[in-house]
Amino acid sequence: MSGFTPKDPDFAERVRASFQAQTFMTTIGARITLLEPGAVDLTLDRRYDLCQQHGFMHAGVTAAILDSAAGYAAFSLFDPDQEVLTTEFKVNLLRPAAGAFFVASGRVLKPGKTLTVCRSDVHAQHNGTRTLVATALLSMIAMRGEA
Amino acid sequence: MSGFTPKDPDFAERVRASFQAQTFMTTIGARITLLEPGAVDLTLDRRYDLCQQHGFMHAGVTAAILDSAAGYAAFSLFDPDQEVLTTEFKVNLLRPAAGAFFVASGRVLKPGKTLTVCRSDVHAQHNGTRTLVATALLSMIAMRGEA
Amino acid sequence: MSGFTPKDPDFAERVRASFQAQTFMTTIGARITLLEPGAVDLTLDRRYDLCQQHGFMHAGVTAAILDSAAGYAAFSLFDPDQEVLTTEFKVNLLRPAAGAFFVASGRVLKPGKTLTVCRSDVHAQHNGTRTLVATALLSMIAMRGEA
Amino acid sequence: MSGFTPKDPDFAERVRASFQAQTFMTTIGARITLLEPGAVDLTLDRRYDLCQQHGFMHAGVTAAILDSAAGYAAFSLFDPDQEVLTTEFKVNLLRPAAGAFFVASGRVLKPGKTLTVCRSDVHAQHNGTRTLVATALLSMIAMRGEA
Repeated sequence: MSGFTPKDPDFAERVRASFQAQTFMTTIGARITLLEPGAVDLTLDRRYDLCQQHGFMHAGVTAAILDSAAGYAAFSLFDPDQEVLTTEFKVNLLRPAAGAFFVASGRVLKPGKTLTVCRSDVHAQHNGTRTLVATALLSMIAMRGEA
Repeated sequence: MSGFTPKDPDFAERVRASFQAQTFMTTIGARITLLEPGAVDLTLDRRYDLCQQHGFMHAGVTAAILDSAAGYAAFSLFDPDQEVLTTEFKVNLLRPAAGAFFVASGRVLKPGKTLTVCRSDVHAQHNGTRTLVATALLSMIAMRGEA
Repeated sequence: MSGFTPKDPDFAERVRASFQAQTFMTTIGARITLLEPGAVDLTLDRRYDLCQQHGFMHAGVTAAILDSAAGYAAFSLFDPDQEVLTTEFKVNLLRPAAGAFFVASGRVLKPGKTLTVCRSDVHAQHNGTRTLVATALLSMIAMRGEA
Repeated sequence: MSGFTPKDPDFAERVRASFQAQTFMTTIGARITLLEPGAVDLTLDRRYDLCQQHGFMHAGVTAAILDSAAGYAAFSLFDPDQEVLTTEFKVNLLRPAAGAFFVASGRVLKPGKTLTVCRSDVHAQHNGTRTLVATALLSMIAMRGEA
């Protein structure tokens, strides 16, 4: 458990509904595999059409799942009428993203009324081994009304 | 012109061949629209299947085109036997990525034997107006042999 | 000229008063050498007591002047009753910070009601030549009342 | 223990000698309070002459200690003839740096022949409580000969 108390008891439904509205997550085949207050994991299978020039997962795909995982980790702690937008992120790509599937783990480091700072790590999994391929720091902003 | 002299006279062919090997660029429909030594632009049309929850282009797609644009800007200055990998990048998302199409402009700020530092900006275009939606700093590493 | 219109006609006095309250700027000997709406330059002489292990200026000193330059560039556009805090920054250190003096140029890229995004570059100067040693992206938040 | 095996059995002496050569660390009064392979803590007392405009520790000072802590964490794993330089870092400033003293904890996340990626956290301590005020990701490069 993450130790955060959500302000919205229906946070899980709200996260799932918003995630489903992210057409790009459907395009790449990402799905939610952990959903707790302040903590979201997304899992993505390796697919040939998501690669860079050496057959590893493209850094943009890595960025997409670590960003959505962190964004929903933040969003899970928001008021029901607040929207979430990423204002900035920084990722260190530690190793080529090689593996059968990938798990992005977004975690809230510091919730805030306006800005929520998250960490997000991506692990590659292959034959039962788990390798950290990317780590990121991200800032999420809480907006009211239309983003 | 960018002011850089490429070490490989066939840099343009090398960049185009590598770009074509990035299956993810084909998946999202990005194409090279400027290719000079140390400078690469990628253009991407707005597509419904590349969006986040509010219908704007997903930050991962923005990251993908700004990363590939910068990577190939760096790669254009490499020796013919060198490969390129992104080691890290940081992006500030300045405005929602709304527009008819998007242009990522990768530019080499500081070439180096090992590390090349680039800037990459993404502009949204709509009805003849051009809006900066994201700006990034990226580090690219030159590798010999298999990446 | 930067093209920004300040909301506070007395922005220059407000910036200078706040800068003088930054004791660390006095400690290292930094001074304001350009002050326009959305644009602040700070100049710092090379000093033996501000170095890292090879005699170059310490990255923390480089960070200090690029952060204050950007912070005051943002602050110059704020309402008179708003305070400024840096929420995050990222710096690429392009070359060792060697030179007789250093100029940090903070520029507002995107002003905002809550967040203002800035770029800040540090150039080393020596015998009439000017070398870019660091480039940064920074987020500044506008706060009301006590920071 | 960090789990890393140093290549140089005299890594601790090498780190201490290099740290002592960083005049800026003496200027601000930072000292090494933990030194293990891949892990270095620096401690700094709050001082009036290191502040920003609200009396909190200046972000440049926070950056200085988190950078040196991470740099020496990386350096502790290097060959005896290698030097260390920071190539880039990103810091999220989570809370104002208020406290009696500050501890920067640099930890190697991913060692490498050329690049070593580190995390570095700064905690403020006051009356027995410990608060995370900043978290950073940093890239360190191993150089041979003069940096």
